[in-house]
Amino acid sequence: MKSKLFTPGPTKVPGAVLNAVGQQVLHHRSPEFSEKVRHVQDELGRLLQTHNDTLLFTCSGTGMMEAAVANLLSKGEKAVCVNGGLFGARWADICRVYGVEVVDVVLEWGKSIGPEELAKVLDEHPDAKVVFVIHSETSTGSLNDIRALAKVVEGHDAVMAVDATSSVGVHEIRMDEWAIDLIVAGTQKALMTPPGLAFVALNGRAWSLVSGSDLPKFYFDFTKTWKRLQKKGQTPFTTAVSLVYGLEVALAMMETEGWDNVYARHQRMGDAVRAAVITLGFDVLPEVPVNGLTVAVCPEGLDGNRVVRVLDDEFGVRIAGGQDRLSGKVFRIGHMGAIRERDLSMVIAALERALHEMGHPVKAGAGLSALQQVLLGTM
Amino acid sequence: MKSKLFTPGPTKVPGAVLNAVGQQVLHHRSPEFSEKVRHVQDELGRLLQTHNDTLLFTCSGTGMMEAAVANLLSKGEKAVCVNGGLFGARWADICRVYGVEVVDVVLEWGKSIGPEELAKVLDEHPDAKVVFVIHSETSTGSLNDIRALAKVVEGHDAVMAVDATSSVGVHEIRMDEWAIDLIVAGTQKALMTPPGLAFVALNGRAWSLVSGSDLPKFYFDFTKTWKRLQKKGQTPFTTAVSLVYGLEVALAMMETEGWDNVYARHQRMGDAVRAAVITLGFDVLPEVPVNGLTVAVCPEGLDGNRVVRVLDDEFGVRIAGGQDRLSGKVFRIGHMGAIRERDLSMVIAALERALHEMGHPVKAGAGLSALQQVLLGTM
Repeated sequence: MKSKLFTPGPTKVPGAVLNAVGQQVLHHRSPEFSEKVRHVQDELGRLLQTHNDTLLFTCSGTGMMEAAVANLLSKGEKAVCVNGGLFGARWADICRVYGVEVVDVVLEWGKSIGPEELAKVLDEHPDAKVVFVIHSETSTGSLNDIRALAKVVEGHDAVMAVDATSSVGVHEIRMDEWAIDLIVAGTQKALMTPPGLAFVALNGRAWSLVSGSDLPKFYFDFTKTWKRLQKKGQTPFTTAVSLVYGLEVALAMMETEGWDNVYARHQRMGDAVRAAVITLGFDVLPEVPVNGLTVAVCPEGLDGNRVVRVLDDEFGVRIAGGQDRLSGKVFRIGHMGAIRERDLSMVIAALERALHEMGHPVKAGAGLSALQQVLLGTM
Repeated sequence: MKSKLFTPGPTKVPGAVLNAVGQQVLHHRSPEFSEKVRHVQDELGRLLQTHNDTLLFTCSGTGMMEAAVANLLSKGEKAVCVNGGLFGARWADICRVYGVEVVDVVLEWGKSIGPEELAKVLDEHPDAKVVFVIHSETSTGSLNDIRALAKVVEGHDAVMAVDATSSVGVHEIRMDEWAIDLIVAGTQKALMTPPGLAFVALNGRAWSLVSGSDLPKFYFDFTKTWKRLQKKGQTPFTTAVSLVYGLEVALAMMETEGWDNVYARHQRMGDAVRAAVITLGFDVLPEVPVNGLTVAVCPEGLDGNRVVRVLDDEFGVRIAGGQDRLSGKVFRIGHMGAIRERDLSMVIAALERALHEMGHPVKAGAGLSALQQVLLGTM
């Protein structure tokens, strides 16, 4: 039995998207494929509520984060990295590899950064060129308020670069209105596409840094990619065409559901799963939780990785364990993208059974009742 | 009507591979997926006839070329780039972006480099650390004799790095026996997988350069990738899992056909298509032609790009035009991977009809007869 995915990315992919991905390949230099590229790029612009161009790349979200660093900065320049988890730490790691001076704003895992705190950092480092933030930190389930943070960054003559890999399609993002200068994201989470594609959108302020950057890049060169897109609706190098087909279908499904409905559904799912795990006696790790996944803290004596294994092996449901320093201490349930409210009882029921099997005290159905109460609107 | 692809990559993908690509995604951190990764990597080792580990990346062939440069070299070091076409020139471009000193060995497009010529270059540049070569130059259809070249490089204390994107699965490569230090390739050509995956294999000599390299890399870091593979059978960042499924099936199909049979089939297809276009009055551009594609030179007054367009629009067959300085001057017919002998009459018949329609003198069936004579063994 193949386990059902309730992981925080890659996520379960809808059948219609898989059908598109399994189509015979179009040549990446054909006019038909250019049309698809332009269509997907327009749709991503609508998703991010931006008039900026979006550029598609064949890589993971991390590749796109590296691209942002290599295109925005020059050697020896300074960047502020908001580091509240595994992915926040990655901004800092990438910057160091490229010889960028890092102001590493380390948060306790599970905490978000407040606008005042960021303002203080920028006051101390007025020469910082870029602030790198993770919108939804997948390792801790924490949400950063990028709207409030962008306002601070705008007032400090720096550029605000956001990784939105696990937030795009979960939490609304108004790129233009909120003055976010650059957004990168992978499409294998709430965008319901098999992994392998990522994209960036950037505004004029970000482009002005790009034109002065001296860091080496070739495959990830934004300028070359933008020129080729403008001229021919193509990517400079061979794209994962099959995944572009899939993304096109996935975006159309979201547009049909309605973006507002998509965000409201994720809010309900987040509320419901949080209520369920809290009722089962777990703390939720993040101070400000994202709606795409729930990170539950295991009490002393309960191994989070074993919870994941038992769910997978015995109950056919795959969730995720903690990463890095959280390994064994938490488990993470993904509920984004193709996951619907009707799917949630499966993962909570399996969780109750797994905990019971592991000898952890569980009141049968307690988590499920809490889930239902939220979904019925009675809690 | 969707055109049939006779392009030199991406190529037509077999139905069984598409079926695999369209499967529900496995989580990239699951043991089932690790098993697939290890299996594919073993199989790629058999393909390259090497005991070296192969590392998988989600990117195009160009991304993998950049990875080779960024992992092997340090700033200011010297590299010899054999530049006989668009992809050879790319080695030099990438090196320059990274501040590597380039010895640019420019060949006339269509020519291959001889071992004596390379020996002379290396005698003049004994401090060159790496020689970058394209095995099958897709822009010109030229083959470089990497076996003979590797012998020269081995005698000069440099490392031999080969791009084999359009040769792997077409021409036999004996990585270990021929002492090739590093090979990169994409899997969207003769390996019959939708675009988006690439790989590298490297030996101890190449690894010793990697350990001294100071160029920045993060997503393309070979050392980190190797460690994660050894420890867990995983890639450090999210892989295009769907494409790995496809590659696994494609490699199994090739193994079932038998590697020797695969190479012999490509030899016959190369011979047959070359005979056909020559009979139709065209010169074949390369001095030493590859077997995966045929590059035909258009006589004065015949626009190669129009040939491509008419074939596509009117006869449902998609070939490729010339790239860069060869635009309009040649057309390129791909015959690799999933293309079988039985498919060849379709493209030659369509070519005859397109040329006739364009007012170019054609003796009906002349190309087809030449094709058949080669396939029957009577020419």
